Amino acid sequence: MSSSKNNNNKDHSSKSFPSSVNPDAVQYFLHKKKKKRTVEDFVKGIIKGDRIILSQAITLVESSRLSDQNKAQKIIEACLPYSENSVRIGITGIPGVGKSTFIEALGQHVIAKKKKVAVLAIDPSSSVTKGSILGDKTRMNDLSLEKNAFIRPSPAGSSLGGVARKTRETILLCEAAGFETIFVETVGVGQSETAVHSMVDFFLLLLVPGAGDELQGIKRGIVEMADILAVNKADGGQIDAAKNARREYRNALHLMPLKESGVNPKVLICSAMEQTGIAEIWKLILINQQLTRKNKFFYKKRKEQSLFWLHEQIGNGLKDFFYKNEKIKKRLEEIEKEVLEGRRNSFNAADELLNMFLDKK
Amino acid sequence: MSSSKNNNNKDHSSKSFPSSVNPDAVQYFLHKKKKKRTVEDFVKGIIKGDRIILSQAITLVESSRLSDQNKAQKIIEACLPYSENSVRIGITGIPGVGKSTFIEALGQHVIAKKKKVAVLAIDPSSSVTKGSILGDKTRMNDLSLEKNAFIRPSPAGSSLGGVARKTRETILLCEAAGFETIFVETVGVGQSETAVHSMVDFFLLLLVPGAGDELQGIKRGIVEMADILAVNKADGGQIDAAKNARREYRNALHLMPLKESGVNPKVLICSAMEQTGIAEIWKLILINQQLTRKNKFFYKKRKEQSLFWLHEQIGNGLKDFFYKNEKIKKRLEEIEKEVLEGRRNSFNAADELLNMFLDKK
Repeated sequence: MSSSKNNNNKDHSSKSFPSSVNPDAVQYFLHKKKKKRTVEDFVKGIIKGDRIILSQAITLVESSRLSDQNKAQKIIEACLPYSENSVRIGITGIPGVGKSTFIEALGQHVIAKKKKVAVLAIDPSSSVTKGSILGDKTRMNDLSLEKNAFIRPSPAGSSLGGVARKTRETILLCEAAGFETIFVETVGVGQSETAVHSMVDFFLLLLVPGAGDELQGIKRGIVEMADILAVNKADGGQIDAAKNARREYRNALHLMPLKESGVNPKVLICSAMEQTGIAEIWKLILINQQLTRKNKFFYKKRKEQSLFWLHEQIGNGLKDFFYKNEKIKKRLEEIEKEVLEGRRNSFNAADELLNMFLDKK
Repeated sequence: MSSSKNNNNKDHSSKSFPSSVNPDAVQYFLHKKKKKRTVEDFVKGIIKGDRIILSQAITLVESSRLSDQNKAQKIIEACLPYSENSVRIGITGIPGVGKSTFIEALGQHVIAKKKKVAVLAIDPSSSVTKGSILGDKTRMNDLSLEKNAFIRPSPAGSSLGGVARKTRETILLCEAAGFETIFVETVGVGQSETAVHSMVDFFLLLLVPGAGDELQGIKRGIVEMADILAVNKADGGQIDAAKNARREYRNALHLMPLKESGVNPKVLICSAMEQTGIAEIWKLILINQQLTRKNKFFYKKRKEQSLFWLHEQIGNGLKDFFYKNEKIKKRLEEIEKEVLEGRRNSFNAADELLNMFLDKK
């Protein structure tokens, strides 16, 4: 593994390319023939803010090859000290609420404030990644052309746990590359909110006007998690409806227990399409951050998240160890065949393999 | 552990109690003072169709105590042979689509056909369990009073994986107790559908009329999974809209790849509230079952699901083994403290513990 230092690693402005071309794609092409980078190369490149090297490091994080993963872990550890000043915001809402447009509007606003923004997704079916059945129009096209925005689709992976772990590690890499405002999109109803909760500082719940079903649709747990509730689509004929929804949510929030952060959740209205109310939301995020840094909740939560991830990493490490074991590998192959042929049930099959593994001790 | 055989274990009819009282609750009270049952007691009771013993066995499945879990595994293994004739149906749809009302209507219909129905939920935020923020009205009140219906809330649990495992094991117990029609409710958008897919034979996607946003909201992956799409709320002024939605979904399905089951997905309209279209849906489920049993896909899928669960059980077993280890327990306590105090990052903490565990080999 030789280090390659003489490459053109500095960040090109997107202006060098026609605006319809994704600068990352072009850069990837330019750098394609490069030799394998060392951990040190990666860390240096990331800290310099090189988008290509950042992308390649994330690819290592997402890889299922053991050698890639070992390398990725070393890179992440070296990147850890650069997380101090970041803010990580989870953004959720049911499909149709306008998440892509909202993230695009908020992202542009933050970039105009001279900050660098990374947009990640925790859900494999998120709008950052693949689209809905008919509505594939809005994919943050404008934001993706910004030099100070880094948009990364949700990693492929069958389990939510696996996707969440990779997203969390990607956050750390993005932060080291100077993208200190992190948006993590999640799909809106159910378990992925809990996963995203384990990696963000704040949680923004996007809503639409037109209470009734809508209000019913928002599960109590998700509202309880939210630090900011934003009623989107407050435009055209829907402004009054949005204001009504704001009032109803404000009333509903009175029934909620006090937040552990010490900062009460707020309800705002906005229109991502007309870009109104976006500045207020960003201001609120900054105030939230300021207050929770001051009362130390911000740091406490991050440490608790670390503890959560410690146990996740233990779980993954154990599985790696089990499946790498040669004796297990051989027997597993036979047992899988028996289960698939219906000659064996999964319960006693798992027992046999686990006992075999334990006996070796 | 003494066996207690002389108890009044037969299934009381709900008619012995005022209709507002949940018969299970009363039975639980009557049996409260009982001695601990053996595995044999449990298995006998379940196979006799005793609801109380079934409930208690499910409580063992959901318990986090190791002794309970060992007992639960033995009970489940003994119940496995009784799954042959069951049909397991996953029911999903975004919040507000009317899942509770639909399951109630379909459940009543199936009971009228002299079948026993169990309703389980894979999602901790499901309508079987706790409700939405404002709309706590429909909780399958009528169905829950039926002697031939068994409704069990989603088990508590922080991880979707844990909840899914317990739900899957509960299915096996319900089947042995004669509840051979199993509905598994899931919340509608995202990862829980994949989990439920690993345990059901068919997948019914519930929709509402009023395309636009609605169509956008349905992620491609979920539509691809569905065997039956039912447009609910085809009543009052919405019948035409429902028919339109049916046409649109039928058109959209033409773009989908052929299903592995060999049976093409169908789109129907129904009104759970007015109980129209429900019989047609049940008929379609039976036809689906017949066809896939005939072409063997039904059995193939169940075996593949077993294989999936084999690996889930291995993962859980490994964690049990790790966390039970005395040396690990002691060191983990210190390390957790270091992580919580910010003196240690989760990455190298996990490394140390895993190495310690491996070195013992």
